[in-house]
This record gives sequence, C-alpha cells and structure tokens, in this order.
Amino acid sequence: MAAEHLLNSPPEPVPEATLRDALAKARGLLAETRTLIQEAFQKDFQFQRKADQSWVTDIDLAVERLLRARLQEQFPGYGLIGEEFPEQNRTAKFTWVIDPIDGTSSLRHRVPLFGTILALLHEGKSVLGLMDLPMLGRLYSGGAGLGVWCNDRPLRIADVNGDAEILSEIISLGGRGQFVSAGVPEVFDDLTRLHPHVRTYGDCFGHGLALEGAVGAMVDFDLRVWDVAASEALVEEAGGKFVCVRRREGKDSSPGEARYDVIFGKPRVVDWILRRLKLS
Amino acid sequence: MAAEHLLNSPPEPVPEATLRDALAKARGLLAETRTLIQEAFQKDFQFQRKADQSWVTDIDLAVERLLRARLQEQFPGYGLIGEEFPEQNRTAKFTWVIDPIDGTSSLRHRVPLFGTILALLHEGKSVLGLMDLPMLGRLYSGGAGLGVWCNDRPLRIADVNGDAEILSEIISLGGRGQFVSAGVPEVFDDLTRLHPHVRTYGDCFGHGLALEGAVGAMVDFDLRVWDVAASEALVEEAGGKFVCVRRREGKDSSPGEARYDVIFGKPRVVDWILRRLKLS
Repeated sequence: MAAEHLLNSPPEPVPEATLRDALAKARGLLAETRTLIQEAFQKDFQFQRKADQSWVTDIDLAVERLLRARLQEQFPGYGLIGEEFPEQNRTAKFTWVIDPIDGTSSLRHRVPLFGTILALLHEGKSVLGLMDLPMLGRLYSGGAGLGVWCNDRPLRIADVNGDAEILSEIISLGGRGQFVSAGVPEVFDDLTRLHPHVRTYGDCFGHGLALEGAVGAMVDFDLRVWDVAASEALVEEAGGKFVCVRRREGKDSSPGEARYDVIFGKPRVVDWILRRLKLS
Repeated sequence: MAAEHLLNSPPEPVPEATLRDALAKARGLLAETRTLIQEAFQKDFQFQRKADQSWVTDIDLAVERLLRARLQEQFPGYGLIGEEFPEQNRTAKFTWVIDPIDGTSSLRHRVPLFGTILALLHEGKSVLGLMDLPMLGRLYSGGAGLGVWCNDRPLRIADVNGDAEILSEIISLGGRGQFVSAGVPEVFDDLTRLHPHVRTYGDCFGHGLALEGAVGAMVDFDLRVWDVAASEALVEEAGGKFVCVRRREGKDSSPGEARYDVIFGKPRVVDWILRRLKLS
C-alpha cells in the first residue's frame, strides 16, 4: 500500500526558482536560434524527405544540434527528446523536449508561420513551454505558476460569455492530412461545415493564436510530444482548457513515438467542439 | 464599323512615367496607413456589423478616409472605388480601388494576417497593384511593365516543372463560407480532398504568398473588385496565371457590386486545379 501510494502520488512541486531560472535560460537559447533561422531563411537551404515521408531541412538539423549542445551544457543530467535525433537520458526526472522547426512544410515553402518549440517535462508532466516564431518576431513563453507571455505582454485566455458568441469565434484546425493520418478525416470535414469560421492555422502559429485568444480554439490531431508539450503547459497556465482527446502509442512505448489528438483554447469553445463532435 | 472598331480597340497604353509616378506615390500612402494601423492595433478599437453582416472596424474607416483624402489631393479627377464609402468620379479614365482592411475578420480577432490594398484601373483594366501587411512588415507592389516586389525584393513566379511537383505544392483557399456564398461549397470540399496540402490562407496574405511562389495557387471565391484588382495586375506582371472563373453582377452594374471567383498562381498548378474541378 505504501509503495502503491508513493507511485501514485503527484510529483513533488518544482521550486519556483528552478522554473524561473530554466525559463530565463530557455528564452536566451531561443534568441540564439531565432537569429540562426532568420539568417538561414534569407539564403538557399536544402531539404529532403525522412523515412516517414515528412520533410527535414538543413535548418531543422542545425537548430536541434545547437539546442542539444546548449541544453547539455546548461542542464547536465536532464533528459532530451527531440524531433530529429535519438532520445538521451531517458530516466532523468527533468526532460527537455525540442521541436527545432515546427512547421517544416511551411519553412520549405517559405510560408513564414513556423517556429521553434521547447518544453520542460518534470516526471512526464509539462511545466514550461516556449514557442518562438522567428519571422513574426513572437516568443510565447511561460510555465506552471509563473504566467504566460507573448514577448513582454502577459496573456490570459478570456472565455466567451455564452454559446451565442461561439459562432463569431475563429476555430483553427491542423491540415486535413493530419486528420486523415489520425483515421478521422470526418473531424476536419464536420467542423468545416458546423462552424462558419474555420481556418487551417497549423503548427505553433495556430497554437500561439489560441494562447492570445485570437482564435477560440485549436483542434490539432496526430501530433508528437514535441508539437504539443509546450502548449499544454502554456494553455493551462493562461486559464484555457486543454483536452487530449486521444493518445495513441507508437511502435514502442517511448514518449517520442506516441501520437496526440488535442483540442484547446477558450473553455466554452472547447466544450462546444467536444459536444458537436460527440467526443464528450 | 469604325465606331464599333473604336469601341472594341484596346485602351491606349499608359506612359511608363505615369505608372512609375503613381506607384511611388501609392507606396508613400501605404507607409502612412501602415503606421496608423500598427498604432491602432496596439489599442482597443470598435467594430460593428454592416448591412451585409460583414464586420467593419474603426480602423477600416480611418484608413479609407485617409486614403481618399490623399488620393483626391494627389490625383485630381481620378475615380475612387472603396469598400466603405460610395464610388466617386465614375466616368474617369483612371480609377483608384481601395480596400482599407482586407481581412477585417482577422483584424477583429487580432490575427495578424490582414492588410491594405490599392489598385489603379485604367479604363477598367488593372495596371498597378499594392498590398501592405502592416503586422508582417510586407509590402507587395508593382505594375504592368514595371515589375513586382515584396519590399525591395523583385518577385518572379516560377512554374513547377511538371505534374509530379503539383502535389508537393501548398494550395491556398479562402474560407469555406466564401464558397458557400458563391453557391459552390463543393469547390472547397473537393479541393481539400483532391490535394494533400490545402490551407486556408485568405485575403492579401494568401495573395502575397502566391506572388512569392510560397503557395502554388490561390483559389479565392466571392470577391469584390477591391479584393482582387491589385492581385490581377501583380500576378500577370510576375509571370503567373490569373483566371477569373466567373464574374457575377451585383444588384446594379456598378463595379463595386460584382463578385469575382478567381484562381491564380503558378501556371501548371492553376491548370491542374481547373482540370480537377472541371472548370476548363
């Protein structure tokens, strides 16, 4: 009983000073990657397909290498999970999660709505999140108990006042291909019919708009942990509602292999979507 | 016969110096409206519904008032057509077309993908186009025989090399509501199924991405003349293909009342869409 109780007890809270220090350092790292990306974006860069048919550019690889090197230096012993290279220190209590370029397809086509994501997990729970959009000059950052900011502006997700306002909101979806991959294209098709203002603002751009309350909710399916861990910490801290509708395990139980289908944003808008899609 | 021939002959070409001068002045005006919009965006602003149920903000009205005053001063005798106020000097040979905020729905929700559009018509044909996106710091501008730029960078729309590349392109659509209003929601629904990378990048943001070749084509239906006149001049000058699939007259024959359904971008991508939608 004692052992079982221990296993099930929530993790010790992380001291606020530890979180603040980690957040400040992570912001510094994203200032560095922003410069790297802005400079590389002006030039030609190479891209190729990965084994899973998704694209990777030279910039993705350079950014993840830089972040891994700096994080190992500044946070010795922490775990590392990133999109482009193998997991490190899997049993660590703290783990940094890296998406060097979230929106590689946008970057490849030079659509400026991509960014770099960092999240800190404590015993598997997301406690810090950062999303930097270099071409828009926007850094979303924050953490559990600390607050959430877009650059220096504090963010607080205000709910809609009632159901009548829900249809005036914008709802943002990932691309239809993600819903096809998740086996539920009807979620995309139904929502574009049920709501008059659906747009596909994917990746960290759409996630950031949800944090600002510019879109009422973000519906993003078939994500990996590096796509979603920052948003989970940020949305909850900003007073929004974050629902993981489904978590599907990958070919092994490593966190980098699982897929997540999530809906988040203003609480009443999220609830409306869950009801209309019969997910609640 | 002589009279009929005269009526059908193409208009005299506009002297290049006249176009260059108009383009330079118009760029100056959009620098002024950019500042106005950036400052207003930081503050609270009011919005209300118009008779057609679309939204207008204080910013739309202030920008159009400013542009009309400056254009009347700098181009006496020219016609003026704008989204928010009545047409002026309808019989003039040259007419400025104004969309003070293209993407008012985005502005209202503080999605930064809106902008100001100016176009110059010569005897009904679009000869200059400018689209300024204040929150992205991007000005697309150019004219017939002059070239096309994004800020200081010259733009040239490169076609895809063959059909195989078409499915790797991004295709951008207006919101589904526009296709519903145009009476053809199936155009939206079919394209999202037929092509793997469809995104709803509407308004001047999507139009600008097509000029840059970032998206292979833009499919935008149910537009008014102020939404589309700049893009027509810019896309053709940049070497892209611009097709008006359908022009529907409004409740009277004034140019501001007609609706346009257009497809434009890389020629082979535009042709592929026309074929797949059985529009060619």
